[in-house]
Amino acid sequence: MAQDFNVTPWEVKGKVDYDKLIVQFGTQKITSELKEKIKSIINDELHVMLRRDVFFSHRDLDLVLKDYQDGKGFFLYTGRAPSLGMHIGHLIPFIFTKWLQDKFNVNLYIEITDDEKFMRNPEYTLDQTRQWAYDNILDIIAVGFNPDKTFIFQDTEYIRNMYPIAIKIAKKLTFSEVRATFGLDTSSNIGIIWYPALQIAPTMFEKRRCLIPAGIDQDPYWRLQRDIAESLGYYKAAQIHSKFLPPLTGPEGKMSSSQPETAIYLTDDPKTVERKIMKYAFSGGQPTIELHRKYGGNPDIDVSFQWLYMFFEPDDNKIKKIEEDYRSGALLTGELKQILIEKLNDFLEEHRQKREEAKKLVNVFKYDGELAREMWRKIHE
Amino acid sequence: MAQDFNVTPWEVKGKVDYDKLIVQFGTQKITSELKEKIKSIINDELHVMLRRDVFFSHRDLDLVLKDYQDGKGFFLYTGRAPSLGMHIGHLIPFIFTKWLQDKFNVNLYIEITDDEKFMRNPEYTLDQTRQWAYDNILDIIAVGFNPDKTFIFQDTEYIRNMYPIAIKIAKKLTFSEVRATFGLDTSSNIGIIWYPALQIAPTMFEKRRCLIPAGIDQDPYWRLQRDIAESLGYYKAAQIHSKFLPPLTGPEGKMSSSQPETAIYLTDDPKTVERKIMKYAFSGGQPTIELHRKYGGNPDIDVSFQWLYMFFEPDDNKIKKIEEDYRSGALLTGELKQILIEKLNDFLEEHRQKREEAKKLVNVFKYDGELAREMWRKIHE
Repeated sequence: MAQDFNVTPWEVKGKVDYDKLIVQFGTQKITSELKEKIKSIINDELHVMLRRDVFFSHRDLDLVLKDYQDGKGFFLYTGRAPSLGMHIGHLIPFIFTKWLQDKFNVNLYIEITDDEKFMRNPEYTLDQTRQWAYDNILDIIAVGFNPDKTFIFQDTEYIRNMYPIAIKIAKKLTFSEVRATFGLDTSSNIGIIWYPALQIAPTMFEKRRCLIPAGIDQDPYWRLQRDIAESLGYYKAAQIHSKFLPPLTGPEGKMSSSQPETAIYLTDDPKTVERKIMKYAFSGGQPTIELHRKYGGNPDIDVSFQWLYMFFEPDDNKIKKIEEDYRSGALLTGELKQILIEKLNDFLEEHRQKREEAKKLVNVFKYDGELAREMWRKIHE
Repeated sequence: MAQDFNVTPWEVKGKVDYDKLIVQFGTQKITSELKEKIKSIINDELHVMLRRDVFFSHRDLDLVLKDYQDGKGFFLYTGRAPSLGMHIGHLIPFIFTKWLQDKFNVNLYIEITDDEKFMRNPEYTLDQTRQWAYDNILDIIAVGFNPDKTFIFQDTEYIRNMYPIAIKIAKKLTFSEVRATFGLDTSSNIGIIWYPALQIAPTMFEKRRCLIPAGIDQDPYWRLQRDIAESLGYYKAAQIHSKFLPPLTGPEGKMSSSQPETAIYLTDDPKTVERKIMKYAFSGGQPTIELHRKYGGNPDIDVSFQWLYMFFEPDDNKIKKIEEDYRSGALLTGELKQILIEKLNDFLEEHRQKREEAKKLVNVFKYDGELAREMWRKIHE
């Protein structure tokens, strides 16, 4: 039977059935037992995104935790293909990654793929993708990572240090093997065909397990890494997978930079946020106030509620009350939207402040921080 | 009609008809007029390899000379995929390149592709190809290039400075376009697919014409460069093509590192040289001394004569006399071989001395010379 959703690294279509996806992708569900184990290790509450199963699936997270408990440790790796403006959906994995770094006090590597973005898109210049890299780095730094345990690097700058390990990786991957995963064909340019080696390289920055927090659509990339890592003397990359923050326009697919009405950008001012949520945020409410009061709304398909649930209302009692009131009809769609608008604007205002402060920190994260200095001295072989 | 020779960058088969090859490849013959022009510009005799048409074909050499005369200048580029031991055939283009550098006083870039060699051969380690890189660099330096106008660089070391221009090149070349030229298929690894970008990059180290002296079998590589160079704001690479120094074993094909009896290695001692020439050097002489005295030998197929003609006996009167005497039968095969053995051993003895001295010069050519220092400061965009 044809399935009504499809998830690949370059497209998410339809209403995703995440339980089915776990089976399809062959990943592991993050069980209550695993969550309890994390709680006991960090001796603290779980992050809202873990509590509410936004991060819901994994590969080898159990082994990562075991290594941590055994004193072997692990490290975190994430990245970004720079773009003109980041939206809320882009920030989610970084926020969760920061939480992991705080709780486990581990090194974090953030790869900025200015080369990939340039090579992938015929219309972009390298100057453009580097400018976006700078802008995106400000947004990433604003998340609040530990400056002495975080190294942010751009491929075109850090390539010399990564190149030896990258060519060892490249030698293990044929065109046939990367073609399907990366959506390539024989008319693809030879740079974008090479790029997977650079995406994999940071998983081998340390001889410890690497944990990658990312949307589950990214999983296929790391399967390639897992096929070859051990033959190079490194660990298979572990992953912790998130669901997609739904686009404003409805519960299907994921936010897209090419459709501005589907997303809230980090640069959107309060008026814009209000206008977008009011106009576009897909509602689970009834067509009229009367009907809504009578039948209530459906929070399961209401994007405003989903955004609050997945991240913006971390208080479990409050989100429970919002859900009940919306379902009963006591809370109207307009009121629900107002709650989200306020949360979003508070978040964005704070983000903008931190983004300003980040300008002074770029050199720390890229060159002068403790980990950064160590990494510039190191050639990864 | 099936043709009895075949020339590709990875195989030379049969007795090459060089005039036919010029037509096939669409290159230009180096005419007497062009040779006269070079003579008048450098105000000196031509190198023996130019005089005797070892370098016999070109692309845009006329434009290079015009640019030189107009004061725009040009630069030289050559390279080497490091191997365990270089043979005489490997040294020929370097010797000619040195002559060009001396006469025109221009910059020369020598790329050592430790990455390519590693990625191309399943059995090689990166440590091996780097060790060979060091050894080959000694042989190259021994040729006597100008240390302040020559930059020798290894891909794995210089990659950061080349990467931006390399990804711009890579973006212009599809897998389909490089596949045939580089002998790739979908089972090739993604590193070796990427490598053509790095081979082309040095042709864009300066905004002047680049002249590449190389065996004509390398021409297909540079056709790719010529297709895209102008769209990136650079010149189409000019080339000056040589014939192949025949393998010892006969006038067909070219010397092969995998068949040691076909070649004289730069490390072969005098006894080895004598033994190899006596045993393997294909002879154009008659089966017995009596028949040889009567009918004479054929220098056109005699490898010892060809080696003397192409490089080891630069004196035009002497080579003429050797040819006449051999053809008449006055000179026996053994005597002809002795002439070559002496020339070869003199050459190799001097080379070994210079190779010893080269050990002190590696850092100059790679890092500290005038051009090297300039190149390490430069990021090629």
